[in-house]
Amino acid sequence: MALTGVLRPGHVQLRVLDMEAALKHYRDVLGLIETARDAQGRIYLKAWDEHDHHSVVLREADTAGMDFMGFRVDSNATLDKLAADLQASPLATDTGWVEAGEHVRTGRRFRFTVPTGHAIELYAEKEKVGNGMPYENPEISPDDLKGMAPSRFDHCLLYGDDLDGTVKVFTEILGFELAEKVVAGPEKMLIAAFLTCSTKPHDIAFIRHAEKNKFHHASFLLDNWGEILKAADIITKKRVSLDIGPTRHGITRGETIYFFDPSGNRNEVFSGGYIYYPDKPPLVWTDDELGRAIFYHDRKLNENFLSVLT
Amino acid sequence: MALTGVLRPGHVQLRVLDMEAALKHYRDVLGLIETARDAQGRIYLKAWDEHDHHSVVLREADTAGMDFMGFRVDSNATLDKLAADLQASPLATDTGWVEAGEHVRTGRRFRFTVPTGHAIELYAEKEKVGNGMPYENPEISPDDLKGMAPSRFDHCLLYGDDLDGTVKVFTEILGFELAEKVVAGPEKMLIAAFLTCSTKPHDIAFIRHAEKNKFHHASFLLDNWGEILKAADIITKKRVSLDIGPTRHGITRGETIYFFDPSGNRNEVFSGGYIYYPDKPPLVWTDDELGRAIFYHDRKLNENFLSVLT
Amino acid sequence: MALTGVLRPGHVQLRVLDMEAALKHYRDVLGLIETARDAQGRIYLKAWDEHDHHSVVLREADTAGMDFMGFRVDSNATLDKLAADLQASPLATDTGWVEAGEHVRTGRRFRFTVPTGHAIELYAEKEKVGNGMPYENPEISPDDLKGMAPSRFDHCLLYGDDLDGTVKVFTEILGFELAEKVVAGPEKMLIAAFLTCSTKPHDIAFIRHAEKNKFHHASFLLDNWGEILKAADIITKKRVSLDIGPTRHGITRGETIYFFDPSGNRNEVFSGGYIYYPDKPPLVWTDDELGRAIFYHDRKLNENFLSVLT
Amino acid sequence: MALTGVLRPGHVQLRVLDMEAALKHYRDVLGLIETARDAQGRIYLKAWDEHDHHSVVLREADTAGMDFMGFRVDSNATLDKLAADLQASPLATDTGWVEAGEHVRTGRRFRFTVPTGHAIELYAEKEKVGNGMPYENPEISPDDLKGMAPSRFDHCLLYGDDLDGTVKVFTEILGFELAEKVVAGPEKMLIAAFLTCSTKPHDIAFIRHAEKNKFHHASFLLDNWGEILKAADIITKKRVSLDIGPTRHGITRGETIYFFDPSGNRNEVFSGGYIYYPDKPPLVWTDDELGRAIFYHDRKLNENFLSVLT
Ligand SMILES: [Ca+2]
Ligand SMILES: [Ca+2]
Ligand SMILES: [Ca+2]
Ligand SMILES: [Ca+2]
Ligand SMILES: [Fe+3]
Ligand SMILES: [Fe+3]
Ligand SMILES: [Fe+3]
Ligand SMILES: [Fe+3]
Repeated sequence: MALTGVLRPGHVQLRVLDMEAALKHYRDVLGLIETARDAQGRIYLKAWDEHDHHSVVLREADTAGMDFMGFRVDSNATLDKLAADLQASPLATDTGWVEAGEHVRTGRRFRFTVPTGHAIELYAEKEKVGNGMPYENPEISPDDLKGMAPSRFDHCLLYGDDLDGTVKVFTEILGFELAEKVVAGPEKMLIAAFLTCSTKPHDIAFIRHAEKNKFHHASFLLDNWGEILKAADIITKKRVSLDIGPTRHGITRGETIYFFDPSGNRNEVFSGGYIYYPDKPPLVWTDDELGRAIFYHDRKLNENFLSVLT
Repeated sequence: MALTGVLRPGHVQLRVLDMEAALKHYRDVLGLIETARDAQGRIYLKAWDEHDHHSVVLREADTAGMDFMGFRVDSNATLDKLAADLQASPLATDTGWVEAGEHVRTGRRFRFTVPTGHAIELYAEKEKVGNGMPYENPEISPDDLKGMAPSRFDHCLLYGDDLDGTVKVFTEILGFELAEKVVAGPEKMLIAAFLTCSTKPHDIAFIRHAEKNKFHHASFLLDNWGEILKAADIITKKRVSLDIGPTRHGITRGETIYFFDPSGNRNEVFSGGYIYYPDKPPLVWTDDELGRAIFYHDRKLNENFLSVLT
Repeated sequence: MALTGVLRPGHVQLRVLDMEAALKHYRDVLGLIETARDAQGRIYLKAWDEHDHHSVVLREADTAGMDFMGFRVDSNATLDKLAADLQASPLATDTGWVEAGEHVRTGRRFRFTVPTGHAIELYAEKEKVGNGMPYENPEISPDDLKGMAPSRFDHCLLYGDDLDGTVKVFTEILGFELAEKVVAGPEKMLIAAFLTCSTKPHDIAFIRHAEKNKFHHASFLLDNWGEILKAADIITKKRVSLDIGPTRHGITRGETIYFFDPSGNRNEVFSGGYIYYPDKPPLVWTDDELGRAIFYHDRKLNENFLSVLT
Repeated sequence: MALTGVLRPGHVQLRVLDMEAALKHYRDVLGLIETARDAQGRIYLKAWDEHDHHSVVLREADTAGMDFMGFRVDSNATLDKLAADLQASPLATDTGWVEAGEHVRTGRRFRFTVPTGHAIELYAEKEKVGNGMPYENPEISPDDLKGMAPSRFDHCLLYGDDLDGTVKVFTEILGFELAEKVVAGPEKMLIAAFLTCSTKPHDIAFIRHAEKNKFHHASFLLDNWGEILKAADIITKKRVSLDIGPTRHGITRGETIYFFDPSGNRNEVFSGGYIYYPDKPPLVWTDDELGRAIFYHDRKLNENFLSVLT
């Protein structure tokens, strides 16, 4: 009992145009910790309070964007069961196994493409490297954290066309719940879905968009609103490109700031939000209130929100 | 998948010596919302962001303390399954059903006594009354909150003798995980257990103590450390009896303040703490570091912690 | 010694188009406390931690904007001395006394117009009404504060043409210091001046602008960045028109949010900023860094900043 | 006008038993910046947002405690005037000049002893070294701050016998105001005095005590309550001896934590408090409310407060 099945967002592999600039950003500005490099030249990083080996993998490429996002499941049995379910479903395509070790210190991963065009992975094994503190009589944080120093990789927001199909994969096969949604027009067409596999208001989210497989942002968890201000100050000190914030989302109630890595991939650091339980009725936002839903204070979208994607 | 089985602490029934004084405390100082009174004279309250009808029930009596603590489970099927498991277990005694309606707007509850002597309940149905905001296009909090205004009832800490037995009930029957523990002496005797059925570092906790069925505190969730300061200021303005705080726990990392209701029942409001996942190795504290484990800044227990119980 | 001469911004009289709407805004949303109404229909308000009778006076009129801003001086002797100096200066025009009692519970005020066209007043006497707590054994704040509940009226930002002339009046006659300034172009033309008569980074500020006697904002002090977030949340809950924020100023380092009263007068609530001492070298900002100077995170002015004035 | 005369606490010279341990504490834990060492072996440090060369001077000695506290005045004219006034007063003893250069990069200092036995200094010149940022287009803080990183040395609390005499020196000769006081018994004997030369609630404070020339604490300014928590966490991580906190003072309303340097000298870091103006009526606390006056939440003194002095 307790949390079972799909446990959490475990990694995101991002394409960056210049690895040196990207590393400087993700390590020194965002404040992730480098844990490995592989033969392909990929760099692996983790947020400080994650115990698994890595949560962000950077790959140098000619275009920015997300290669895939991976979720940790509770066991190999669950992994096999979900892999079989996905293979059996017409909604999951390009299904197949990535062999153990393809990601450093990580077991086999089952990869599939959801109807919005995004590659998603499941895996059951990734080496525990700890959070920089002992398991016996620890302190409350390790020393020598740098930059914004989020504690965890938290979620991604992705854009794509067949939103209904993707929501089906997550809710009907993977066991996610729809915590909040945005609907448009008299037919109440679903245009945004905030999906959770835990007590967080979202572990992954999708917005309907004409093009398949677009990446909006990867988000990292900070402790509180005071840390959001420090992140904002760092953004300016380091001349990082700011998108919007500090502000609050209506959806999830989280306190947030958006900014861009040197390749144009959007990052978020956020804090707060409510505790989600599966018996909580979903929240519904209508498109006439979309501005307030996304940016609670401004009550309107900034021009970047719908158009700047990688 | 996602969160299943036992979902969360759903209520605590507390004995108070004077109902009027207690109501003033729980409603005006702590800031819970009264939702009902019953024929027995019990008063029902909820924290603002809970959707269920109530989470605290006050009963006037000659001695203070806790009557029982109840957990919501995800379905009647789970309730029946767990009830059967508990009835079959020698560790759960005084088992039996409390009929639907005995608590206002609440379904049947299965009550049992754990080896530390505490009465625990499970239930699958309690009326949803919402959080004071619509499910369509809500604001981020309702107006007119009072006092400390915690968003949720979060956990209890209980004292009793057969700690090992109680931990077995929670982990082996109810599916809880042991997130953190304190061990004493060369035999590493378990003297404190922090148990979770979710991604919170604890949903219930126990400390070994000579006497059965003692109550240490009921805890309520605040948003952040700034709210802990406001709670502390309210405690003095309202001349509430302070136990200790504002401070931080080493265990769970939570920011906290302890105080007493007019009957001597200890309350806590807290914020923060990490996200627990079931694959996270448990944290172990040794008794020589118990002070730092409980009160991270003071690094020693105050004299109340082990002795003042109801 | 200590603080002498001009002590602080003591009041601002604002023109509002609809008194009922204005009162709702300044009392219920901003959270000032109404202290009086006068025969003319003006409404007097104060922030909670001010001891003087009022700091904001609302006057219903056909156009929004500021009638005048008043500064408290330390004594009648100082008032007479400064009045004489101002009368003798060609930079102060339309000089003259407003009789005691014209503002409720306020002594005589010396009014003059500075070269940017703004009416400024000095006065030495306004009745002390306290901060809602006793002077013996007080609490740390009064009960029943409403809305954003700033502790003080802090400063105004005004726009006008002859910036150099106005700065001369404040620094050479009234004893203010120039804490920070913005200069433009190779000639380093002064385009913004932040003037202090205390240890605050500014008590009044001016920006060069083609038109005389324009009002940019009146600012009120909050305790911290957490209170700025609460103010932002209130702005949306009460559907107040937001200008920009929460964000930080580069100039003064203050944490801030701008919004509009129902008549279009801009308000600010802010927190933080450094302690100014008269031996601190002035900070200079160049116009190519004006964006970062004003809005440290965005690093660009929003379109309202230079154009929306009353 | 504005702030004149005595401007601010400018330095405190502390005796430490072991310089290496002291440096580690003041530089790495408290987070001051070392700016010089002199031929005597004294080490000079400053807080990051101070512009003057130093504010703390450490001197190795056989007993801990304070050698003297120094105040910066606005000019040599003020320095000469106050020196003459002090020399003429029977309340200031052991008066005399310390020559320029005796403290690194500091002008001549006029030293005197107040009736409580403490050596106090005045000076008009100390080299400006800046706050680690340019005066043109600065950021909002320098990089690479360490430890608690207070922005300023703020005040000292000193214990001694002839409190009335010392208050007279500060108020009648040096131009300080009595912002708050504690009185005892039916005769309202003054037992504590909080004195300000600025808009801070105190720049120096004294408590009546049988012995002369005792040092209670030197205090340093943090931005906010969140920084107090970080300071508390650092105190434990670095195993610094905690006195009390995080908590709030009733007097000044400041948020605070007390701890000890390795020699037993008490330090404080604090934030918040109100803006003091010279026309604000003084706050009076009676000894029956002394606990709440000092520690607002605990409402009682801890055993250290009155007895642990250096
Ligand atoms: Ca398939
Ligand atoms: Ca049984
Ligand atoms: Ca004139
Ligand atoms: Ca003398
Ligand atoms: Fe997000
Ligand atoms: Fe607790
Ligand atoms: Fe302003
Ligand atoms: Fe102090």
